[in-house]
Amino acid sequence: MQAPETFPNQDDEAGLQLNADGSLRHLLTLKGLDRTLLVQLLDDAQRFVSPIGEAAARSQSLAGRTVANLFFEPSTRTRASFDLAGKRLGADVLNLDVNTSSRKKGESILDMIYTLQAMRVDIMVVRDASVGVPAYIARHVSDYVSILNAGEADVSHPTQGLLDLLTIRQHKKRFDELTVTIVGDIAHSRVARSTAQGLHTLGVGELRLVSPPPLAPDPGEMPYACLLDNLDEGLRDADVVMALRIQRERIGSLDGIPGIDEYFANYGISRERMRIAAPDAIVMHPGPMNRGIEIESALADSPASVITQQVANGVAVRMAVLEHVSKSMTWQ
Amino acid sequence: MQAPETFPNQDDEAGLQLNADGSLRHLLTLKGLDRTLLVQLLDDAQRFVSPIGEAAARSQSLAGRTVANLFFEPSTRTRASFDLAGKRLGADVLNLDVNTSSRKKGESILDMIYTLQAMRVDIMVVRDASVGVPAYIARHVSDYVSILNAGEADVSHPTQGLLDLLTIRQHKKRFDELTVTIVGDIAHSRVARSTAQGLHTLGVGELRLVSPPPLAPDPGEMPYACLLDNLDEGLRDADVVMALRIQRERIGSLDGIPGIDEYFANYGISRERMRIAAPDAIVMHPGPMNRGIEIESALADSPASVITQQVANGVAVRMAVLEHVSKSMTWQ
Amino acid sequence: MQAPETFPNQDDEAGLQLNADGSLRHLLTLKGLDRTLLVQLLDDAQRFVSPIGEAAARSQSLAGRTVANLFFEPSTRTRASFDLAGKRLGADVLNLDVNTSSRKKGESILDMIYTLQAMRVDIMVVRDASVGVPAYIARHVSDYVSILNAGEADVSHPTQGLLDLLTIRQHKKRFDELTVTIVGDIAHSRVARSTAQGLHTLGVGELRLVSPPPLAPDPGEMPYACLLDNLDEGLRDADVVMALRIQRERIGSLDGIPGIDEYFANYGISRERMRIAAPDAIVMHPGPMNRGIEIESALADSPASVITQQVANGVAVRMAVLEHVSKSMTWQ
Repeated sequence: MQAPETFPNQDDEAGLQLNADGSLRHLLTLKGLDRTLLVQLLDDAQRFVSPIGEAAARSQSLAGRTVANLFFEPSTRTRASFDLAGKRLGADVLNLDVNTSSRKKGESILDMIYTLQAMRVDIMVVRDASVGVPAYIARHVSDYVSILNAGEADVSHPTQGLLDLLTIRQHKKRFDELTVTIVGDIAHSRVARSTAQGLHTLGVGELRLVSPPPLAPDPGEMPYACLLDNLDEGLRDADVVMALRIQRERIGSLDGIPGIDEYFANYGISRERMRIAAPDAIVMHPGPMNRGIEIESALADSPASVITQQVANGVAVRMAVLEHVSKSMTWQ
Repeated sequence: MQAPETFPNQDDEAGLQLNADGSLRHLLTLKGLDRTLLVQLLDDAQRFVSPIGEAAARSQSLAGRTVANLFFEPSTRTRASFDLAGKRLGADVLNLDVNTSSRKKGESILDMIYTLQAMRVDIMVVRDASVGVPAYIARHVSDYVSILNAGEADVSHPTQGLLDLLTIRQHKKRFDELTVTIVGDIAHSRVARSTAQGLHTLGVGELRLVSPPPLAPDPGEMPYACLLDNLDEGLRDADVVMALRIQRERIGSLDGIPGIDEYFANYGISRERMRIAAPDAIVMHPGPMNRGIEIESALADSPASVITQQVANGVAVRMAVLEHVSKSMTWQ
Repeated sequence: MQAPETFPNQDDEAGLQLNADGSLRHLLTLKGLDRTLLVQLLDDAQRFVSPIGEAAARSQSLAGRTVANLFFEPSTRTRASFDLAGKRLGADVLNLDVNTSSRKKGESILDMIYTLQAMRVDIMVVRDASVGVPAYIARHVSDYVSILNAGEADVSHPTQGLLDLLTIRQHKKRFDELTVTIVGDIAHSRVARSTAQGLHTLGVGELRLVSPPPLAPDPGEMPYACLLDNLDEGLRDADVVMALRIQRERIGSLDGIPGIDEYFANYGISRERMRIAAPDAIVMHPGPMNRGIEIESALADSPASVITQQVANGVAVRMAVLEHVSKSMTWQ
């Protein structure tokens, strides 16, 4: 009998993604990518950012390539962002929505991957709710295929991390003088993990992670970050404040936080609350937002908010990553 | 807390869709579009009609543009028609199916729109079951985005109205000498409203709306139309006869019409029944048809039927509208 | 009232698919296609096979054409394969998933086809669970439309048959000296039927169909094949061995085969078992595989396995067929 598939999150994941010359073969995690490579990706992405009112950036650098979006978890935004990034580089894009339940009863994930590989898919963009799936796939594909992680359980969402870095860099020039505060359900957030990792590599001045105690990460996980449960303490003089989406169901399980109103009162960011941050602080959110829960609606629409700019940068970052892995492909 | 979204159908809707120079910025409704603009759109669409047996019309006038099909109501035909129209003009087309229930519990419709806008979607094609959604979106998008209404509750379906006008014009030269009869569930028909509006603007000779009394529109709504409940009276000497799709569930609620057979006997159009119309009358239906309910199957397939021609004209009209709004975009 | 649709599988199906000059108008079944035409399709497909590590084969021979994938049965692989085949030839591809239940309550299949035809879809790729649907559609479309069968009930899957033939030909030069063994649920397999038909036309030396007795085909159906219920007998000196996917639910209904383990013991192919076959025998499977049920996992991954090569050939074969029917279109 066929054993259930398991996806061990082995320690070579970070190394797995680099070619011998240090270029990117897969993008699985921001862990293990050095400052030079991150800066190069941000510089490349910046070239794909066009001013509002001008045409979207395009090229034909992926003409003749095939990109498959393989989403085992539902997604509208990230999928649309990768879809447009691929099309604007001239690639053929194949969108496949495969829910996890059908995967379990049907063919193994590797057989699905081998099938796409045989169809000459060059780049597979993978989202999955299980830890280790992108790396597991990356270990098994042929030399001619790149894997991009588009969201992996609670642990990793590297293109989101890159777009956050790019957005911060567009507003704040030096990372080493910055205080960045991420607020909310850190424990379950792949966004927080990838963004924190990238900030750490770029030498951020101070990184604060603010959450209700049950939603704090393991203290040893991000030793470079300062873990807090008091929002005002976290916001004080912060240059960048990022709110995370919280699943409403989780709020009920928090001690002393019986409902949404109390969550907002304690961990929601608002214009009022932001007065304690630096005067020119920017406000971020990975979306989709629960307005009135983790972020005040008026703050999300205020001049301090760079939330839609994050979305715009998302397409640019994905174009940069697609182009980068494509350039290092053997058959080019 | 986040208030439920409402979409007031404000009176400036018609004006909202025009640029200062009178060109089309959005297409929300045929209301408020003057005869000159309608004729121009029909002329443009006619250029995209190619004879059967020749290649489909194509151009590259939307190359570099992105069109998103944002359908909150399921649709196969209208979505396929816009998809092909966009692709045949060289646009990148993004297909998003978002059912209304997920919209309600998730992010607000405006956040979804702002996300697409940030991704540099130039034209959003919107279908929704609620009144006012396309205009609500149009009021909030940036100067660089156009909204096209692809079906709005019971009230508006402007590209369907245009394709009906084009089809009629191909067969009958002068609108002012025509008698047009629309038959069926007028009350719930966005098709009837848009087509009636367009015919009125083009100065149709006589417009008759025939329906069972419970499915008649409000008498004040279309004062230029003649409301009837007797089909033979409606068909007499008509030049154009259009049957509307009826939801089978509605038939049970009609006095004196216990079932499908009685509905067909009273309000179904047939070859026999069409003898009372003008000898060269054409027969239309917006599709999908309930053959044997609102229209006799043999009539739908008879030489008088122009139903598939309507479908062909649908792609041409949508190409013309996409091209028109694209030409007036600021960044061109 | 509208009668339920029926799709009689008339005897002219095979003839229906050829133009007067013997070229392919539709691809409905391999039945009736002569050796010359099969060899030509295989030769054409071979041109679209590119070595691993080189770019996927591409052309612009379908530029300006529209291909619609009309799948009334769910499919990931075959749909993806046709999608990529169309895109790599430069066609516009329209993907439509219409489940059968919605078809039954909604518009008739012909009205849907007439709609797509009016939108200038040139080639419709159809998968359906009912016998006769592709031929039924082919009988009704205009002179300018080609129908390709992408899987029809239990009876036909011609592009799968062609890709099997191509794969065999790449490894074994002469069909007339070959012994080919197909193992599993023959009775319900459209793959077995199409592949068997193609092998017969190409003059295969010996064709063996091995299955548990309840899953054997009707003895009169493929008189050219040898029907067996003993696997070892079927495998002896075989040059090509193809395992078929079995629905797990069917296993419970087999006498003397209480479960999966017994099925594998009796009808599963394995490295051990393959020792009885020819030393250079190849192993095939149409996918998706139930590893450990109809095929030992290690055998599927062994050097004898050509399973992913089948997938690669699938895209090539579909490109060849799309190009072939496109060349014979009237309007070219």
